[in-house]
Amino acid sequence: VEIILIAAISLDGCITRHGEHGTAWTSAADEEHFRRQLAGFDAHVFGSGTYDAERSRIRGALTTARRRVVMTRSPARYAGEELAGALEFTDEPVEAIADRLRADGHRRLAVLGGNVAYRAFLASRLLDEVVLTLEPRVFGMGTRLAGDAIAIDASLRLTEVTHLDESTLLLRYRMPGSA
Amino acid sequence: VEIILIAAISLDGCITRHGEHGTAWTSAADEEHFRRQLAGFDAHVFGSGTYDAERSRIRGALTTARRRVVMTRSPARYAGEELAGALEFTDEPVEAIADRLRADGHRRLAVLGGNVAYRAFLASRLLDEVVLTLEPRVFGMGTRLAGDAIAIDASLRLTEVTHLDESTLLLRYRMPGSA
Repeated sequence: VEIILIAAISLDGCITRHGEHGTAWTSAADEEHFRRQLAGFDAHVFGSGTYDAERSRIRGALTTARRRVVMTRSPARYAGEELAGALEFTDEPVEAIADRLRADGHRRLAVLGGNVAYRAFLASRLLDEVVLTLEPRVFGMGTRLAGDAIAIDASLRLTEVTHLDESTLLLRYRMPGSA
Repeated sequence: VEIILIAAISLDGCITRHGEHGTAWTSAADEEHFRRQLAGFDAHVFGSGTYDAERSRIRGALTTARRRVVMTRSPARYAGEELAGALEFTDEPVEAIADRLRADGHRRLAVLGGNVAYRAFLASRLLDEVVLTLEPRVFGMGTRLAGDAIAIDASLRLTEVTHLDESTLLLRYRMPGSA
């Protein structure tokens, strides 16, 4: 399974503006790009914070054509919300999630955040690509792409630079060890 | 005086790798670009951490053609190290520094870090440009471009995207309100 991290970040590495939840601060160009891009994945993984904040939107769009895996320390809290093949809640490490999706024949997994999910995949050797929307913003305070809790030292290879609009860039990076 | 912030950052907004001091982690392409670029400025401002770490290199290159302003909370600690017109130590706010350099006829001021100096200028309305070397690295932990202490909300305008090497980008942004 190809595993691709997708994030919108400010110039100073924030994925949220200050203490706000979510990505309401991103450009219209990024929102459009993000929706278009997601269609190319048969699985999404994200944290329970994202699920909690967008529960009704997510539940309204459930389909076995696009499996949703929610990372949480408390899967029991979501008992009864699962839908076989479409929505699941897990406290497994990312390696186990990837193994299971691979075994089930999934081909492309999008890692959609927040910072706990991003960090777990960035710290693993599982990622194939990192796709960043670099917004022309500076926030000073905000949630960081890879949190602030563990040291990572990854060198990536830039494969694509595209203007989403005048000042917003789409940057695609290949992780080392990926084909 | 035109005021231009120059920094090398990782994809997750770090200006240092983990707890290391300095920018030894940056690419050879950035080092070359950085030296070439600095020649175009008649004044540099940076924090005392940078001065302390590179004291002999800085003192070995002093010239009145390129005035160095060191931001410190304790100018008295550097008594006797000043050199008129070439090196000074100040606890003034950035507005006063800019006014003084303007009055003295300086035309281009480079803001070279660390995060305290970057933050003070980013939070002011003084900056004309932000020039970032975006290195293809992820560190998880490290000093942040604009620290983590005050909320900023700046929207910039992208004016230049250049490859310094295969995976390192030079990004030039204009601050709002600048011509």
